[in-house]
Amino acid sequence: MANQVRSALIQCSNPINDESVPVKKVQQAMLDKHVPLIEEAAKKGAQILCLQEIFNGPYFCPGQDKRWYAAAEGIPDGPTTKAMQELAKKHGMAIVVPLYEEAMRGVYYNTAAVIDADGKYLGKYRKQHIPQTSGFWEKFFFMPGNGGYPVFQTQFAKVGVYICYDRHFPEGARALGLNGAEIVFNPSATVAGLSQYLWKLEQPAHAVANGYYVGAINRVGTEAPWNIGKFYGTSYFVNPRGKIIAEASEDKDEVVVADLDLTMIDEVRQVWQFYRDRRPDAYQDLVRP
Amino acid sequence: MANQVRSALIQCSNPINDESVPVKKVQQAMLDKHVPLIEEAAKKGAQILCLQEIFNGPYFCPGQDKRWYAAAEGIPDGPTTKAMQELAKKHGMAIVVPLYEEAMRGVYYNTAAVIDADGKYLGKYRKQHIPQTSGFWEKFFFMPGNGGYPVFQTQFAKVGVYICYDRHFPEGARALGLNGAEIVFNPSATVAGLSQYLWKLEQPAHAVANGYYVGAINRVGTEAPWNIGKFYGTSYFVNPRGKIIAEASEDKDEVVVADLDLTMIDEVRQVWQFYRDRRPDAYQDLVRP
Repeated sequence: MANQVRSALIQCSNPINDESVPVKKVQQAMLDKHVPLIEEAAKKGAQILCLQEIFNGPYFCPGQDKRWYAAAEGIPDGPTTKAMQELAKKHGMAIVVPLYEEAMRGVYYNTAAVIDADGKYLGKYRKQHIPQTSGFWEKFFFMPGNGGYPVFQTQFAKVGVYICYDRHFPEGARALGLNGAEIVFNPSATVAGLSQYLWKLEQPAHAVANGYYVGAINRVGTEAPWNIGKFYGTSYFVNPRGKIIAEASEDKDEVVVADLDLTMIDEVRQVWQFYRDRRPDAYQDLVRP
Repeated sequence: MANQVRSALIQCSNPINDESVPVKKVQQAMLDKHVPLIEEAAKKGAQILCLQEIFNGPYFCPGQDKRWYAAAEGIPDGPTTKAMQELAKKHGMAIVVPLYEEAMRGVYYNTAAVIDADGKYLGKYRKQHIPQTSGFWEKFFFMPGNGGYPVFQTQFAKVGVYICYDRHFPEGARALGLNGAEIVFNPSATVAGLSQYLWKLEQPAHAVANGYYVGAINRVGTEAPWNIGKFYGTSYFVNPRGKIIAEASEDKDEVVVADLDLTMIDEVRQVWQFYRDRRPDAYQDLVRP
């Protein structure tokens, strides 16, 4: 007996690529651009939606410019979480909202707020793995997350979040599975070149190893002034068998929708008894400081 | 500056598929069949060779027949390790030798002995993850390994071993990387159907996540009396970028040879600082019993 959940991802290019425009105005423009896409997801019947990494602005980490600290806000007390709670309630749709979080003055995280379909704030995930490499100078902007690998019981499914660079680390993907995730969303920002050939390797592997669905979101477009390359979109859903079941284009703003049959999680886990056969007693190497 | 190591894998079908033949005779026939293939690997200049899972016999786990307990022997004191030490020394080639191990009377492991190019026995790896599912009733035959994830310094590279079903578990793949493996060999026995679409997903993902080479070996042919399907060969090497660089056929006895440039390990790790950015402090979920 199928237990379908209709889920959606949004990839959306940044409309303002002009350094002279204040950060808050850029954010407002990006939020405004998302509203009709969120509405489109709702009209298509989506029950759980995830937006892209730090969705309400450009991916500003190709530089190390203090001006972008102003993009951070409290979660859940900042305005964007509140606005999204309204939208979630209006549409009866759970929403995962990746945001730049200010936890205290001068302390920032790369975070996602999880909001249920009745508008209730369920909690947040703070990105655990922070890159520092050409084009991705994130250690300048974010503390490594300190909240573990929480899973959120929405009205429709148990949802986990993993953010961008996190996807290269099998450990957190496993922790999310152990904690009960049925769908793991990974909002990302990644450009053609270095990582593209890994885009459909690592996350399908996580889906298989852990027996859950993954919804992977990437940006589209090119963002000034950094121009590090084209964000190649191709946001997708992959099922617990490792098969990609829905995928967006490389270059258009787009809502990807897929029906996720949660009973496949049980089917797959009954065939592949990976959780039964794990060896937690033999994994001490992984937690050695 | 390249630091090439020439490495080889052997896939080899079982010549005797007749239950009336004694176990030891079957093993001798399989060993005899391997000798010229090992010689071929040496002639091709291989410096490190890995054989298939429990190489000297059929994959007997589609049944649960006590008669196959007789296939087990001591490591390194049994005759096969000794014979392989001779061959390693003769050819100046390190050899990874997957065998059915008798650790004490009635206690068995699915093991690989690692022998250096001068014939010296370096140690063994005992398969950590044991399946028990249709066609793969391994909990009848093997205790789960108790020796962690050792890495062996051969004359040519640091070698780790992961065996068959182990490949579905990212944890041990990571432990081998943390322990210094440059090449991880995974001798397997897997048939068309269930796992084939995963064959080139999981292990390339391990290679990428951990920045090392993987040499994956599968059997070929069909084995009676079980006839669970065709072992689909396609033994391959994959580099730390996740690209398959050499691959065998689906159905022939074959020696796969590839030059592995160990400097690529450094190149990749300098681009992707996954070891630097891991969060051992945040992985406690993985070792919870």
